[in-house]
Amino acid sequence: MADPTTDPYLSLYARRTAGMTASDVRALFAVASRPEVVSLAGGMPFVQAIPTDHMLEVVTKVITHHADTALQYGGGVGQLSLRERLAQLLLEEEIPAAADQIVVTAGGQQALDVVGKIFIDPGDLIAVEAPSYVGALSAFSAYEPTWLQIPLDDDGMIVSALEGALRSGARPKFIYTIPNFHNPAGVTLSYVRRQELVALAAEFGIPIIEDDPYRKLRFDATPIPALRTLDPANVIYLSSLSKVVAAGLRIGYVVADGPVLQRFLAAKEAADLCPSNLTQLIAEEYLSDERWRDNLRTLIDIYRGRRDACEAALEASFPSDATWTRPQGGFYSWVTLPESFDTSAMLEEAVERLVAYVPGRAFYPDGQGGHQLRLAYCYPTEERVTEGVQRLGDLLREKEAATAGATTA
Amino acid sequence: MADPTTDPYLSLYARRTAGMTASDVRALFAVASRPEVVSLAGGMPFVQAIPTDHMLEVVTKVITHHADTALQYGGGVGQLSLRERLAQLLLEEEIPAAADQIVVTAGGQQALDVVGKIFIDPGDLIAVEAPSYVGALSAFSAYEPTWLQIPLDDDGMIVSALEGALRSGARPKFIYTIPNFHNPAGVTLSYVRRQELVALAAEFGIPIIEDDPYRKLRFDATPIPALRTLDPANVIYLSSLSKVVAAGLRIGYVVADGPVLQRFLAAKEAADLCPSNLTQLIAEEYLSDERWRDNLRTLIDIYRGRRDACEAALEASFPSDATWTRPQGGFYSWVTLPESFDTSAMLEEAVERLVAYVPGRAFYPDGQGGHQLRLAYCYPTEERVTEGVQRLGDLLREKEAATAGATTA
Repeated sequence: MADPTTDPYLSLYARRTAGMTASDVRALFAVASRPEVVSLAGGMPFVQAIPTDHMLEVVTKVITHHADTALQYGGGVGQLSLRERLAQLLLEEEIPAAADQIVVTAGGQQALDVVGKIFIDPGDLIAVEAPSYVGALSAFSAYEPTWLQIPLDDDGMIVSALEGALRSGARPKFIYTIPNFHNPAGVTLSYVRRQELVALAAEFGIPIIEDDPYRKLRFDATPIPALRTLDPANVIYLSSLSKVVAAGLRIGYVVADGPVLQRFLAAKEAADLCPSNLTQLIAEEYLSDERWRDNLRTLIDIYRGRRDACEAALEASFPSDATWTRPQGGFYSWVTLPESFDTSAMLEEAVERLVAYVPGRAFYPDGQGGHQLRLAYCYPTEERVTEGVQRLGDLLREKEAATAGATTA
Repeated sequence: MADPTTDPYLSLYARRTAGMTASDVRALFAVASRPEVVSLAGGMPFVQAIPTDHMLEVVTKVITHHADTALQYGGGVGQLSLRERLAQLLLEEEIPAAADQIVVTAGGQQALDVVGKIFIDPGDLIAVEAPSYVGALSAFSAYEPTWLQIPLDDDGMIVSALEGALRSGARPKFIYTIPNFHNPAGVTLSYVRRQELVALAAEFGIPIIEDDPYRKLRFDATPIPALRTLDPANVIYLSSLSKVVAAGLRIGYVVADGPVLQRFLAAKEAADLCPSNLTQLIAEEYLSDERWRDNLRTLIDIYRGRRDACEAALEASFPSDATWTRPQGGFYSWVTLPESFDTSAMLEEAVERLVAYVPGRAFYPDGQGGHQLRLAYCYPTEERVTEGVQRLGDLLREKEAATAGATTA
């Protein structure tokens, strides 16, 4: 593609596009996709665990019996059969949902975009965890918000920090949170804090956007009630089949009560008319047969093993002054190094040593997190996870030794 | 869903959502979906014409050989194999395109949304045909533009009207046009006007957004060069596989040169990360086998027959003071009645008589077109098209007779 400095339309773009440029990190990831590099960067589900025969059976049924629907436009709200199935699966987790409270989206990402679209006027304040999911930050950024960043600890969002801001007069349009197996932080919001958060949001009349794509990827822990379970009237629940079925289907969904869902639907239809009937019917067919639960258990076992490999390698090879979170599910561990490290600058060296990660700055609207990084253990084998973390640990120790040497000298 | 007047979040929504509410027309369409109603309303492709065996073979190949890619996340830009195939098909039509000038979108609608997102700041002027595609108006509306409406005649956009506005100082961010088999107007932009339009846009440095989903659905006419063929440097070309393969795949694409494509891609990734790998691979597999052209010829023959049935029934049964366009391809005929008719008000009566259409007002940002309507002949059989147009003609004649009687009395 051409040099952006020669762009004839430069004076024509909307203001919101100012921050939308291809990043250096993306260029590095192109390099990192070489097979010899252990990528702990992207959060790709291990779809290889889904038996091909099973999926072939599913798509064959859909085309044989429902081709005319599968190949046609559908309603913006999504196929009723899929929404009924999703409602039933949510009820298994005690999350209040009925088919007419659900709208299907093009992956979880579209739900984030549409939430931004319906709530954010330029300059509006929104509350997000710091760090938060990079895709949510991009989606919301397009609507030009200002940010109220709420820090996290091992029990998830520090709700007292949010409370302090609200009591001091901050009035965010919504509170965005990833309560389970946080992306990127790997932590889970404790039950006590969930109760505090829903009470606080209700007191101030601020909707909670609960983003919960990893919920079913629990390794050992007992499930903690969803925020929507605790306060259905004030929680807009987002999830996705990307991690529990297949990301390639691009099926996400939003669960909400009443008129906000109509507003969401109208904004979503303007963006892409309707989700794919074909992938919706495939998802519904897949979820209608109990074998999908076996596949999910297989996936969970795989991810647990890789989480264990990641933790063991971190213990064995990372410098003693580094800390990391201990995820009870999901895809990510979040590493904090001494402040002298710059994980953005270091990425190129890491890739030269055949390991990739995502630098911490990507996960904060204000560019903090320069000494942090995200490790995704979900996709490479246990052996490769171990190898990748070791390579990174070696690099960190060498850099520390060099710095110590320089200081001593 | 609940009554919007009881919406607890009413004070929290972004300004752009003000016009986003479920319309009365939509409620009527729910009624119109009963099988006894002949729907000349929705522009649904007749996907029944695609042989199920053929499609089953396609999806079987994709899952058998490429399941790991099909079920995984992909790049925001879209699968290279599909972009190469699309480039080749565009070159057959002499439309300049290379794989790296193409970005795959979630249907043509997403391309419209992202065009709005990257160009329109609130209050910005954009030029659209009057009438124009209702989905484009919704997509652009979300970014709060002001509208420069350019009228159409049987040769498409009246370019001299656009020229007058530009010479008087109007400076739209872009010029949006549907040159072939216009939705809703059914007309095609003449070659002379195409040359005038690209020259005018280039003179003023204003990009043309060429929306061309119906191009391959030509009934008899010789193809006219695309605007992008005439001026690749200043035309952003949008199209879709919804009408030539299957709408249920949700595959659209944009073709553009240089940095505007990077801006487009970044904005699109923020909206939904990536298109479905599964449906992209299915589209690519389908287009890689020449049988798809036979299917397309079958579709064209079907649509031509329905266009003929529609025209014959209009001639036979519509009042003599009604006029309509004569589409050379595509899905739509556009009817203009005497100004005394109100096609919005009349729709309920039409549905009672078991025929549905889309009232003209939907296709103008300023609510003109109250005496116009769109007929989509693409989906019902010839017999049903004839029956539907006759029912509507009977209603119109009766209303005219009643008015004449009242005037005479």
